Amino acid sequence: VLAAPDGRVVLTTDVMVEGPDFRRAWSLPAELGWKAAATNLADVAAMGARATGLLVALTAPGSTQVALLEGIADGLAAACAALAPGCGVVGGDLTRSPTLTIAVTAIGSLDGRAPVLRSGARPGDVLAYAGRLGLAAAGLRLLFDAGEADVAAVQRLRAERADLLAEQLAPSPPIDAGPVAADAGATAMLDVSDGLLLDATRIARASGVVLDLHRAALDADVAAVRAASGLDLQAALAAVLGGGEDHGLLACFPADVPLPVGFRRLGDVRSGEPAVLLDGDPLAAAGWDSFAAEH
Amino acid sequence: VLAAPDGRVVLTTDVMVEGPDFRRAWSLPAELGWKAAATNLADVAAMGARATGLLVALTAPGSTQVALLEGIADGLAAACAALAPGCGVVGGDLTRSPTLTIAVTAIGSLDGRAPVLRSGARPGDVLAYAGRLGLAAAGLRLLFDAGEADVAAVQRLRAERADLLAEQLAPSPPIDAGPVAADAGATAMLDVSDGLLLDATRIARASGVVLDLHRAALDADVAAVRAASGLDLQAALAAVLGGGEDHGLLACFPADVPLPVGFRRLGDVRSGEPAVLLDGDPLAAAGWDSFAAEH
Repeated sequence: VLAAPDGRVVLTTDVMVEGPDFRRAWSLPAELGWKAAATNLADVAAMGARATGLLVALTAPGSTQVALLEGIADGLAAACAALAPGCGVVGGDLTRSPTLTIAVTAIGSLDGRAPVLRSGARPGDVLAYAGRLGLAAAGLRLLFDAGEADVAAVQRLRAERADLLAEQLAPSPPIDAGPVAADAGATAMLDVSDGLLLDATRIARASGVVLDLHRAALDADVAAVRAASGLDLQAALAAVLGGGEDHGLLACFPADVPLPVGFRRLGDVRSGEPAVLLDGDPLAAAGWDSFAAEH
Repeated sequence: VLAAPDGRVVLTTDVMVEGPDFRRAWSLPAELGWKAAATNLADVAAMGARATGLLVALTAPGSTQVALLEGIADGLAAACAALAPGCGVVGGDLTRSPTLTIAVTAIGSLDGRAPVLRSGARPGDVLAYAGRLGLAAAGLRLLFDAGEADVAAVQRLRAERADLLAEQLAPSPPIDAGPVAADAGATAMLDVSDGLLLDATRIARASGVVLDLHRAALDADVAAVRAASGLDLQAALAAVLGGGEDHGLLACFPADVPLPVGFRRLGDVRSGEPAVLLDGDPLAAAGWDSFAAEH
């Protein structure tokens, strides 16, 4: 039984599956729990809500070590404490399965705010973002390059690129920025889980608008990815535009509203056939689709 | 965003995993969806709440036919319409996994009632039950006897024992009885998902009481199991006492309260070291534990 102070609850659910979504060769158990919490907390924040509780349904093989489950629980608790104080795991399920999966349902309170949907962006709005872009994807690329079999290579990578890998393995998206954006009058918002282009396309289609990204606004992101990962310019730009898993907040604001703390301008909202442009040129929506993925 | 009329929500989650929890050789897709909804609706009812929405997180192999997913969706909708009008699927997730799983989170409203916990039973209370006992387990036993490989045998069984198999594959627990029991003053309640003895033991331990089942009160259940399944007396009694998956509501009521419609007396609540007895004799708690199961 969970409080719903304003008579409504925000609900979201997201599953992490061993194989498509994570590898135990790369992630510590606590990182699995942290990421499962952080991604769902970002989904609540993207509605403009404050997370109030998580339900966690774990499925695991009968041979699973209890320490793995304890590590996942520790990571869930740590992410809640760090990213959404006052939120914690309030219930769940544990059952046997051939595949290790972590299904989290997050519950949030709008505290009287109107929910921020994907469909409210209007021509003339400013497109803005809070969080990092491309680092999570760059970290994943280095992990794929290291592979799963070579334990020493993974350990070396974890030691040498700790900050970058944390963006992929235990991200800290700006959860606080969600309610702040809602209070500031955000017209549309979502968290960038599947890549900037794909998620921007979702706002463009739901709102019936054109989103025009400014290439110059991404310069710092591209440079940060290059510095942290050693990727070349093209690969770094691809990570920033299509990489996904950063879980920052992509939002639109009326032009006359000062951008709230944590947000920076990425581009403009214009009228026209729904599309995402880069300095006025069309971009195909590329991003993460678990059923289309090769990995 | 879901309404929470009295400023609280009841939450529960339960996962069904292919293999441990269901076989596609036995269940139609719509039955999988029906059962996933019904079991979670029973968990909400057991708190004394009215279900208001389901979140459904499906994981499925990339080779999964869309018709399977559509069938699951149809079954979810049909179970909500039949068992909890006004409730429906309000969101979810779909992702790729080697293992087909259906993780449902159910949300409910207490509509101002106090939640009914497991811990409120008091000596002198009446132990009562709404729903069937043993039929789901008897149906499962016939399915195991038929096996998975012999498609004709399964089809014959489905034709000849349709009503019994429905108790296992697409159960219709008395969801309405949950809020009714709460209004009548139930002191403790849960749904019998893991077997009468195991679930009764949970109430006994949480409440610090002895639950004494009356063997005569189970006569009709044993007879119904024998008639529907052809099992002998001993196997039928084992199904009634330990079988599980009936998802009826086991509740305790003060002795001076008339049992609400749908409930029948199964026994008494007494003081003493927490235990479950049958006509005064101790019974070991046997029931379903997915990690201990042989299947």
